[in-house]
Amino acid sequence: MSTVRTNTFKKSIMHVGEMASGAKLTVPVYSFKSGKNNAPSVYVQANMHGAEVQGNAVIFQLLELLKSADIQADITFVPYANPVACNHKNGEYTLGRFDPITGVNWNRMYHFDEAVIAPFAEQYLHANEADICADFKKLLLNEIEEKLDDHIWGLTTGQRIAYQLQRLAHQADLVLDLHTGPISSKHLYCPEYAQESASFFDIEHTILIPNGFDGAMDEATFCPWWSLQQAFKGLGRNFVMGEGAFAKESFTVELGSQEQIDLEVAKEDATSILSYLQHKGVIVSADKSLQTYLPKEMTRYACYLKDYKALYSPMGGMVDYLAEFGKPLSAGEPLVRILRMDNYGVSEGANEEGEQDHNSEPLHYVSLDHTVLPILHFASASVNQGTELYKVFSKYFEL
Amino acid sequence: MSTVRTNTFKKSIMHVGEMASGAKLTVPVYSFKSGKNNAPSVYVQANMHGAEVQGNAVIFQLLELLKSADIQADITFVPYANPVACNHKNGEYTLGRFDPITGVNWNRMYHFDEAVIAPFAEQYLHANEADICADFKKLLLNEIEEKLDDHIWGLTTGQRIAYQLQRLAHQADLVLDLHTGPISSKHLYCPEYAQESASFFDIEHTILIPNGFDGAMDEATFCPWWSLQQAFKGLGRNFVMGEGAFAKESFTVELGSQEQIDLEVAKEDATSILSYLQHKGVIVSADKSLQTYLPKEMTRYACYLKDYKALYSPMGGMVDYLAEFGKPLSAGEPLVRILRMDNYGVSEGANEEGEQDHNSEPLHYVSLDHTVLPILHFASASVNQGTELYKVFSKYFEL
Amino acid sequence: MSTVRTNTFKKSIMHVGEMASGAKLTVPVYSFKSGKNNAPSVYVQANMHGAEVQGNAVIFQLLELLKSADIQADITFVPYANPVACNHKNGEYTLGRFDPITGVNWNRMYHFDEAVIAPFAEQYLHANEADICADFKKLLLNEIEEKLDDHIWGLTTGQRIAYQLQRLAHQADLVLDLHTGPISSKHLYCPEYAQESASFFDIEHTILIPNGFDGAMDEATFCPWWSLQQAFKGLGRNFVMGEGAFAKESFTVELGSQEQIDLEVAKEDATSILSYLQHKGVIVSADKSLQTYLPKEMTRYACYLKDYKALYSPMGGMVDYLAEFGKPLSAGEPLVRILRMDNYGVSEGANEEGEQDHNSEPLHYVSLDHTVLPILHFASASVNQGTELYKVFSKYFEL
Amino acid sequence: MSTVRTNTFKKSIMHVGEMASGAKLTVPVYSFKSGKNNAPSVYVQANMHGAEVQGNAVIFQLLELLKSADIQADITFVPYANPVACNHKNGEYTLGRFDPITGVNWNRMYHFDEAVIAPFAEQYLHANEADICADFKKLLLNEIEEKLDDHIWGLTTGQRIAYQLQRLAHQADLVLDLHTGPISSKHLYCPEYAQESASFFDIEHTILIPNGFDGAMDEATFCPWWSLQQAFKGLGRNFVMGEGAFAKESFTVELGSQEQIDLEVAKEDATSILSYLQHKGVIVSADKSLQTYLPKEMTRYACYLKDYKALYSPMGGMVDYLAEFGKPLSAGEPLVRILRMDNYGVSEGANEEGEQDHNSEPLHYVSLDHTVLPILHFASASVNQGTELYKVFSKYFEL
Repeated sequence: MSTVRTNTFKKSIMHVGEMASGAKLTVPVYSFKSGKNNAPSVYVQANMHGAEVQGNAVIFQLLELLKSADIQADITFVPYANPVACNHKNGEYTLGRFDPITGVNWNRMYHFDEAVIAPFAEQYLHANEADICADFKKLLLNEIEEKLDDHIWGLTTGQRIAYQLQRLAHQADLVLDLHTGPISSKHLYCPEYAQESASFFDIEHTILIPNGFDGAMDEATFCPWWSLQQAFKGLGRNFVMGEGAFAKESFTVELGSQEQIDLEVAKEDATSILSYLQHKGVIVSADKSLQTYLPKEMTRYACYLKDYKALYSPMGGMVDYLAEFGKPLSAGEPLVRILRMDNYGVSEGANEEGEQDHNSEPLHYVSLDHTVLPILHFASASVNQGTELYKVFSKYFEL
Repeated sequence: MSTVRTNTFKKSIMHVGEMASGAKLTVPVYSFKSGKNNAPSVYVQANMHGAEVQGNAVIFQLLELLKSADIQADITFVPYANPVACNHKNGEYTLGRFDPITGVNWNRMYHFDEAVIAPFAEQYLHANEADICADFKKLLLNEIEEKLDDHIWGLTTGQRIAYQLQRLAHQADLVLDLHTGPISSKHLYCPEYAQESASFFDIEHTILIPNGFDGAMDEATFCPWWSLQQAFKGLGRNFVMGEGAFAKESFTVELGSQEQIDLEVAKEDATSILSYLQHKGVIVSADKSLQTYLPKEMTRYACYLKDYKALYSPMGGMVDYLAEFGKPLSAGEPLVRILRMDNYGVSEGANEEGEQDHNSEPLHYVSLDHTVLPILHFASASVNQGTELYKVFSKYFEL
Repeated sequence: MSTVRTNTFKKSIMHVGEMASGAKLTVPVYSFKSGKNNAPSVYVQANMHGAEVQGNAVIFQLLELLKSADIQADITFVPYANPVACNHKNGEYTLGRFDPITGVNWNRMYHFDEAVIAPFAEQYLHANEADICADFKKLLLNEIEEKLDDHIWGLTTGQRIAYQLQRLAHQADLVLDLHTGPISSKHLYCPEYAQESASFFDIEHTILIPNGFDGAMDEATFCPWWSLQQAFKGLGRNFVMGEGAFAKESFTVELGSQEQIDLEVAKEDATSILSYLQHKGVIVSADKSLQTYLPKEMTRYACYLKDYKALYSPMGGMVDYLAEFGKPLSAGEPLVRILRMDNYGVSEGANEEGEQDHNSEPLHYVSLDHTVLPILHFASASVNQGTELYKVFSKYFEL
Repeated sequence: MSTVRTNTFKKSIMHVGEMASGAKLTVPVYSFKSGKNNAPSVYVQANMHGAEVQGNAVIFQLLELLKSADIQADITFVPYANPVACNHKNGEYTLGRFDPITGVNWNRMYHFDEAVIAPFAEQYLHANEADICADFKKLLLNEIEEKLDDHIWGLTTGQRIAYQLQRLAHQADLVLDLHTGPISSKHLYCPEYAQESASFFDIEHTILIPNGFDGAMDEATFCPWWSLQQAFKGLGRNFVMGEGAFAKESFTVELGSQEQIDLEVAKEDATSILSYLQHKGVIVSADKSLQTYLPKEMTRYACYLKDYKALYSPMGGMVDYLAEFGKPLSAGEPLVRILRMDNYGVSEGANEEGEQDHNSEPLHYVSLDHTVLPILHFASASVNQGTELYKVFSKYFEL
């Protein structure tokens, strides 16, 4: 007979900065210490970008569902990861993709110094796997601690936040950074080597990313390990990424559209994440009373990062977004219809500058010359020439 | 046998301001001169608030549909009425409710000076109706011209735009100002005396507004006439609002949600407006080849402005908006569910300041003590304490 | 022999709201209880507008100077009065004049309901002065409490902050709201009846304001009393404003330019305020060891609010501000020189639209037709047509 | 006897984009064709960052001064280079360092593809210098044309502007990009190889930058040539940077503080630029009637880019900036004094969270451990923890 589990996540408060008034910027951290070491440890954060709030609801549902789970590893949850972004309004919306002072994307400020890889690989060429794993993790954490300890020139606001989150993330084996698109279908950023894991999420679209560091949380946590594995390989010692000491995986989970909270959908997404965690052994359901989390059956599509393309508007105007997410759009089919009322009735003659403008129609359609899979589109109908209209899988394949 | 009509709207460009670089702020004006005087003249503008773009698409569809209509009066269309607001981005969204420099709502800068009413009424107490109509219109236009001619202290950016639009609007008998809510059902602001006209729009919800001037376009165009009619009444001469010299009506048409263009829905809204204009005789369909525009059958609800209430958030948090628009929501039923992840697991003990907080639950429901009809809600899930959550008909009745 | 005084101000924390993340908005309150009742009590706040920070430094210096003063009344200081505005950045600057969501000026949300005046005056027509004073204060506080207790529709973010500040202010007899202009000389908003007090501040320019309530803190605290005095007068009972029960004064003190902290200048401003407070008997210096605060000798100019005029830019462009603050500028002398590089070399022929533009010179001068006293100018060289360039005393006189 | 010259710069209008309303983004281009080829050609632009307007005034003064100069080469001036940034207000200030939609710095979007260098060097290893110069310029222009011709995925708003400016810049030998700091002394970014030229500007502080491309205009125009020279060197052929085919120089000229126009100071800066151009032979003054432009005598200091350091605020607060620009500041001397009113009176006991905070003083001083030369500071007194306070020459030497 099973007893009711009531796993308790300990809440602590992390200070990540201060505002001009002296107000402290704090982030709640929920952590569960399993006392076991049977499975990879987990780190999940949400809301690094201010408008991308749904991940907070997913963490809520994860906490609720995990109350009665059999947890085999340490788990840490950080909702509201970026209190500056999260609370920054301009008009009704949340201006949260970048530091409002500097314009720097909040998710491009994590740290990875490629220079540490080669020396470590050489030094540990003949070390055992456990030591490699432990000491490399220690090295990564030391790097972050040193950054946080710089008392001379200091850190930027975003670095101070990012490094403190990264310090938590480096302690885990599996890292999930919960984001959303602007108006978007669900999709997953997954390192190329972890492609198999993508099938355990209830997400139809996966972007496979290479070992290039561009400052994001997922890259900051898997690139060091991947780079290390490659350095060892160059020295003649082969490890398999995703296994043993290198059983590290990081994902950016794009939960749909920004500026929205939906607790029902959040429960589905929590279930999807638990399906991945159960696959990894983080939760087990040997006990019949416990829920089993299995991935849904669906056709999953993948696309290499280089083929995940943004389409920029060829003109200013007001956009009727026509292409549906996740449905292949044939060559020549319009993605958008752009309204240009200022051109109404002008095409028949000259425009106000006395020149004939080639694009002077009130409606303008934009299509591509090959089939694509639309994933997300811009959040507003009003676009400038050069505003990103859609992001699409330009080439893709079944996962 | 009917011939195909191809009414042509003449396009002109109105200069409404200049930016710092010297760039001219221009607004396209589409006007049709019927050469007849059989019906009230019409003025329709859109996009005074930057994010409220759907009206531009409605004007597009009106222009398309009117190509083949039998038009009995002058009609003027002004899309993109406010080029500053329309092009002002902050992040992905359009910050367009207020002047970004001053914070003043763009739709609170029109002009009406109550002081002109009494003297005019006294002077024209015994005048014939045609003179009253013509001379009062002239007076209103002169007022605007004087404002626009102030070469000493000048006008604010918003006044210069508003007054130029108002100069066009004062020349018409029927004025439609096309707006949208944030995330919203369709609804109509209608002067109390024009209540009957509301039934000719395919809009379920009407807010009946009294004769109080608060700076908006609709008020700026009907309040002078209503005030004049009341002044005459005070002097013992009775006119009926909406008839004869006083056949003036102005509406703010709220077309749904902001930041969206949908040309199909715009066609429906154009048809709805044409139903109203056909009712007023602006277009006629004696000719069988022409389309007849009739209002849809639907239950229409009305609410007095004083009963159209905003609900402000009792707390900061992330909001799952639960109440559907247009469906009566019973007392006690939640409008919203507010997520407060920082409270998760805290309610059992003290919070970080060592005090027990009464609202320290991760989910908080907000309801009202009587039945309401939800009309619109805030555009973002993230709200501060005191952010407007919903606007509702607090008391309402069938129209 | 005098002992060293070390007056201690008690610090408390006032909760004025919550952000989306649940972060509490707090305001520090420093209060001194004299235990005496020999002089009017004092309330001083700063930084209601986000960029207007110098008042915080002035409060710092007041606290330092008052450590060793002989204080005869209760004093309350509130720096950082508006934590939303104070911490809201857009680019490098602080967007703090209005709520970034709604555009409403933070200093237009205080409360005063004219409707309470007449009934109170009638009821207390024959009451003694002490009762009038005590009961009217109670009435004002009750009004605020009721507002803060609205648990049905709630308050806006700004109202919740404003009302809590106003609750503190209503308890004092003398209220100072510390602001700054954009780029500005020091100036003082003073109720007309308190004109004599203006001479005790070291501020050359005073704007005399009438008894009209427009939502600002100074008005919200003196208008009720002035209105009551006038109501009594209408009923045949005469009180003198500024004396006895009506010894209430409120000022908005404009300390210079925004976005700046200067602790040395702040000390001068603190001294100036102490000169006013010593005049009112709030501090005394009978004891020879104590500092005496006397106003500096200077020519002080005053201007009625109706003559305090804004000059709006007649064109877009980039502005070289020429007129010095506080020095009379003769008719015809330029306030600004506006650069319009896009016009360079154009005046000789037609502009790009093929029309000859009257203003097509690269440099444009703006002057007025009578002598004015410039007080402040816009914070940026880049202006749109209609941006406020300068505020000036259009008519003025020696105080 | 000399005749009065009246050189005429031809004005043309360059279309660089469109806004949502269809409004065209245009940039005025002033060009002078000398018909001679005696000296290097010149490109000068201003106002790529919206708030950095003083360069427009400098171009105005250059145009005025050059009317009567003896010009030996083609010169192009582009004021208002970025019409989006230039016209984008948030509150009173101009939010112009980055695209308000994406956050990307407008001066990080120019193009340089390192990959073209090696093949060109190999192909032209034995070519004559004139061909190298002409064909490499052609290659750079072709690269830009191809980018501008991408009709499939399109360009971002900023790229479309940047590439069109770069197309003009690549046609010149000498490129000056006029910027300003936030609140700043004048300083110059100069390629290391062009160090000698820095002495011809009346600017005391020069930052010497290496051959690394980070997206800025100056780099985008000199890095290709420097890289090519180094590639040739690697192949055994030596050219001297700054001479012959490689007589290319690019500077970012920082004219002082942003948000300001001062036409008098602009004249001094124009004179300083003409001193550099006269040194390069672009203008000559053989004719006695013409003005001779010589650099002022002053001690000039230089600093390598790696030693040009930003100091980030160790805490949130309100900053009294103490360090003067251009004066060596000794180790231990404070750069800033940070006011933290919320800490007033707290240091003696515990803070509100019940913990003793180490930094809980109302005034906090920040200094460095070695002598530095302060160059600029942040534009606002209000800073978050991590906001850039100052930029300083950490190591420097006389030029």
